[in-house]
Amino acid sequence: MQDFRTDMADERRDIYKKANNLENEIPGIKCAELQKKENVKLTVVDILDKQGEKALGKPIGKYMSFDLEKLNLADEDEIEDISEIISKDLKEIVKAQIDDDGEILIVGLGNQFVTPDSLGPKVVSEIEVTRHLIKYAPECVVPGARSISAVAPGVLGTTGIETFEIIKGIVDNVKPKLLVVIDSLASKSIQRISSTIQISNTGIVPGAGVENARKELSRKTLGIPVISIGVPMVVDLATITDDCLNLFITKLQDEAKSNDYLNTLKNQDKYEDIKSALIPDNYNMIVTPKEIDELIENMKEIVARSINYAI
Amino acid sequence: MQDFRTDMADERRDIYKKANNLENEIPGIKCAELQKKENVKLTVVDILDKQGEKALGKPIGKYMSFDLEKLNLADEDEIEDISEIISKDLKEIVKAQIDDDGEILIVGLGNQFVTPDSLGPKVVSEIEVTRHLIKYAPECVVPGARSISAVAPGVLGTTGIETFEIIKGIVDNVKPKLLVVIDSLASKSIQRISSTIQISNTGIVPGAGVENARKELSRKTLGIPVISIGVPMVVDLATITDDCLNLFITKLQDEAKSNDYLNTLKNQDKYEDIKSALIPDNYNMIVTPKEIDELIENMKEIVARSINYAI
Amino acid sequence: MQDFRTDMADERRDIYKKANNLENEIPGIKCAELQKKENVKLTVVDILDKQGEKALGKPIGKYMSFDLEKLNLADEDEIEDISEIISKDLKEIVKAQIDDDGEILIVGLGNQFVTPDSLGPKVVSEIEVTRHLIKYAPECVVPGARSISAVAPGVLGTTGIETFEIIKGIVDNVKPKLLVVIDSLASKSIQRISSTIQISNTGIVPGAGVENARKELSRKTLGIPVISIGVPMVVDLATITDDCLNLFITKLQDEAKSNDYLNTLKNQDKYEDIKSALIPDNYNMIVTPKEIDELIENMKEIVARSINYAI
Amino acid sequence: MQDFRTDMADERRDIYKKANNLENEIPGIKCAELQKKENVKLTVVDILDKQGEKALGKPIGKYMSFDLEKLNLADEDEIEDISEIISKDLKEIVKAQIDDDGEILIVGLGNQFVTPDSLGPKVVSEIEVTRHLIKYAPECVVPGARSISAVAPGVLGTTGIETFEIIKGIVDNVKPKLLVVIDSLASKSIQRISSTIQISNTGIVPGAGVENARKELSRKTLGIPVISIGVPMVVDLATITDDCLNLFITKLQDEAKSNDYLNTLKNQDKYEDIKSALIPDNYNMIVTPKEIDELIENMKEIVARSINYAI
Repeated sequence: MQDFRTDMADERRDIYKKANNLENEIPGIKCAELQKKENVKLTVVDILDKQGEKALGKPIGKYMSFDLEKLNLADEDEIEDISEIISKDLKEIVKAQIDDDGEILIVGLGNQFVTPDSLGPKVVSEIEVTRHLIKYAPECVVPGARSISAVAPGVLGTTGIETFEIIKGIVDNVKPKLLVVIDSLASKSIQRISSTIQISNTGIVPGAGVENARKELSRKTLGIPVISIGVPMVVDLATITDDCLNLFITKLQDEAKSNDYLNTLKNQDKYEDIKSALIPDNYNMIVTPKEIDELIENMKEIVARSINYAI
Repeated sequence: MQDFRTDMADERRDIYKKANNLENEIPGIKCAELQKKENVKLTVVDILDKQGEKALGKPIGKYMSFDLEKLNLADEDEIEDISEIISKDLKEIVKAQIDDDGEILIVGLGNQFVTPDSLGPKVVSEIEVTRHLIKYAPECVVPGARSISAVAPGVLGTTGIETFEIIKGIVDNVKPKLLVVIDSLASKSIQRISSTIQISNTGIVPGAGVENARKELSRKTLGIPVISIGVPMVVDLATITDDCLNLFITKLQDEAKSNDYLNTLKNQDKYEDIKSALIPDNYNMIVTPKEIDELIENMKEIVARSINYAI
Repeated sequence: MQDFRTDMADERRDIYKKANNLENEIPGIKCAELQKKENVKLTVVDILDKQGEKALGKPIGKYMSFDLEKLNLADEDEIEDISEIISKDLKEIVKAQIDDDGEILIVGLGNQFVTPDSLGPKVVSEIEVTRHLIKYAPECVVPGARSISAVAPGVLGTTGIETFEIIKGIVDNVKPKLLVVIDSLASKSIQRISSTIQISNTGIVPGAGVENARKELSRKTLGIPVISIGVPMVVDLATITDDCLNLFITKLQDEAKSNDYLNTLKNQDKYEDIKSALIPDNYNMIVTPKEIDELIENMKEIVARSINYAI
Repeated sequence: MQDFRTDMADERRDIYKKANNLENEIPGIKCAELQKKENVKLTVVDILDKQGEKALGKPIGKYMSFDLEKLNLADEDEIEDISEIISKDLKEIVKAQIDDDGEILIVGLGNQFVTPDSLGPKVVSEIEVTRHLIKYAPECVVPGARSISAVAPGVLGTTGIETFEIIKGIVDNVKPKLLVVIDSLASKSIQRISSTIQISNTGIVPGAGVENARKELSRKTLGIPVISIGVPMVVDLATITDDCLNLFITKLQDEAKSNDYLNTLKNQDKYEDIKSALIPDNYNMIVTPKEIDELIENMKEIVARSINYAI
């Protein structure tokens, strides 16, 4: 399988099509775009069958990505607007999985002390939990309110425990009917950092974005449906250098100033020695906008409200 | 049983002795004091049997409380000194429960966003976890290193889930041999706020200090030994007003200016209407030193190092 | 002069009237109350002349205090509502001092790392400053926009410099036409902690609430008008014990169970030894609601929006 | 003048030598290297005269850069060690400027809410200020103690006021004999991010590292000597893409697979269209190690201790 270096289904589709010179849709994939609002674009990628699954390296299911433009400048009204738009689609996805009163557990993955990995825990702290009220103070909730609980399990590096092990334990004890998991993702596009939300009705592999791959959270492993909400927070520096060199060679070709060697080099990921010369060993270099702290605050608000409104 | 309004075993002993006019030791209790260092005093209360358990309202076991004077002014050297003193006693307690290589899970109770309730999560973030290294990168740890993991499960009010339910789930999956639980406690003494550490070899009831009582974490409920490390972080305002009125009547008596009514009133907790006039309904009023943020930072360092050195 | 132990003009008026058994208004004082909204009450105290100034120990001017009920439970809509109400009155006060385009410097006093002293710096971080845009990027602001700048000068204990010295230096260089100062205050009422806003058109003495008195920021010392916005953040523990004992004696009197000695004691602040027995020397004990962190977040929003809307 | 895209004197020297194919030292420059400790390398660049000044685009003076290897893994002992090494050299530089009892003002530049720009304010919060004690509580300091004050003036974007205007006002009022300024710098080397400290006896231009150039803080503008302590915190993404393309062409040349066009392209900064294709307009993209939060904590400790020990 291709190494996509992105967790975004729509980016994988683009890469696959380009790499395979496909003009038409990839077999097993359906895709639609929708301008929800002047600055909110929705791309829906449906992975329909095993063939599509194999092409994109992601499980069968629906992947909605909302691109939010100029989010760092969004004011309170705009945040509210966007949250309402997203919550409607999220509500549909939730409805397709469980009853209106089915208990939900929200899980915020990531390390709250590492800025680009802190979205999950931050969102969890804004979720309106009701499970304890229903249990211990039913007079404080409207009758028939859905039971909501929320946890931020931390990351392997600070707990020493696989996220899956912690969540499995909680699911076994709390017995929710649905899991909603929030995580940071990797993207190939700098513009999408903290500016795009991908919602899918399939599970998630914790740390896929910024840590090593770990055991997935999904219906297969947990026995209940899992909706995942992911936001690209980093672009790997190696991705950027790759893009940079490809753009460079394309430009040389366009200007008829390339040569045979360069032509064979392109799109072949053979720049390992350049990357290793650029990127020091001991560190995990990421590219991020300087405005990241502000972007995360706005994104946290949008994701938290979308969830609170939807459930 | 008496309402002690304190989680500290030595304070309960004092209150019980005074309330029952005991000159000698309470049956079923043993107590010793030790000046460990100029500014570190250790009080050990042993609850020996059911009689002692009933008197103090705490389970049979050993309760060590370390009083640290002028902790807000402690410098790096002093923090290191105190940590070493405490870690030695903690090591003994751990040794009495499990083998040198028995796996330990550290649990930091409390809400990190509420200053006087944030000690547990803060300590957890300083624990040197090894469980994942032993499992996935054994070359990074010394051979025979003890497996350590650490979690901060959050509080009922923000997760919607009982702390016990979360910890039970993790214990069932991770299967540690010992739990070390860090929590905020209530004390009757203003001086002890963030300046005293109580270590006991019995379990703990999460939120006893600052929230309503919940299901205990103990060998009985979890099947493994539990060591608890508690630090008084708040004094209830009602406790202060009680103390204030008692001191006042004592003073009047001393000066022969009391009267019969006052004499019967004393020590009887009948000031409910005064307290309700002073303390507004909607809030949970606490008394805290203005220097609390600094005190917590120093205390966090001491507890974290004591644990890291001991295990 | 009486030691009021509160910075709130309306509380001082109550204390003065009670202490002097006044049924009518204090000479030199005018007072009015206004229910602005179900949960927003405004009390306006006007100190009209030297006589009023002497009685309340505060300079001639207008003191508006807005009491906000159940602020810890306020949602986004309510915060917006309250902010609009307050901003209208604040706008009037600003208008009375300077032209619509007169430059304003906002100053947030206090220590951002000490929770009950952090309101000023927190509000400053939410102020929409325009001075640099008008100077360097005039195309980014609407024509005729007022020049706004904002600083958080820190506190004497962490800078080593008097707040007055820092502000004087900045005022001399930036030359604003008006200063708006935000600070934490002391109150005698627990209910008002982070739930009341006092706006006055007189200066302020930095640290009056939670530190020792320092050189005032006022038209007299700075040469420009100063509007101060203060929020009670702490009640001194000594204040509580006083109130407690007074309530106690009142109650005994009501029940005809007092005696001559107690009657003379009342309202005389002679409980120094009780207070010193209760309150340890080395610490500055304060009473605060456990929900303080949440209250401050809501209050920060209200004060920041009130200012942003008003100017 | 060349656009160096780095604030580090030693990097500028390397670039200048390479660009001008110099084998010997640049006229007007002196340079020495010293391995202070296994993992601490010191490079001293002396700009001796106008010629050197013009070559490197930095004022005459001494620039010491300490490279600290694997700082993210440094433990307490190592941090102490490194701090002592640096404080010795810093002490020499201070001694050369003022008497042992000359008053010093420490200034921490940068925005505390933007992680890679937060070093200055973080260091300031760790400085042991004495000025207020000497003035108001002389019994709390040793006789003859130097008067130290410290401020974090914020950044233009959040205060609306030029850093120079704020500092000028404070210097005029406080009248220190020496300024020590801490700031974030730009480097061309990813390895140096939060891992190198440059100390110089010349002034500094606030925001040179991460914001637009502003009015300098120097003896010329403030009338007192200025020592600056800078730490590279970001590498511009454009710098990386440049390096990437240069490395690429060099490699093609080495393998004899380049062509004439590429050869002329090299080192000529003509890739503007590639960079603009890669880097979105609205954002200021930076490259940073994912471990940046941890690196800053360690760096903060080292800089703060170096200053506290040296003065």
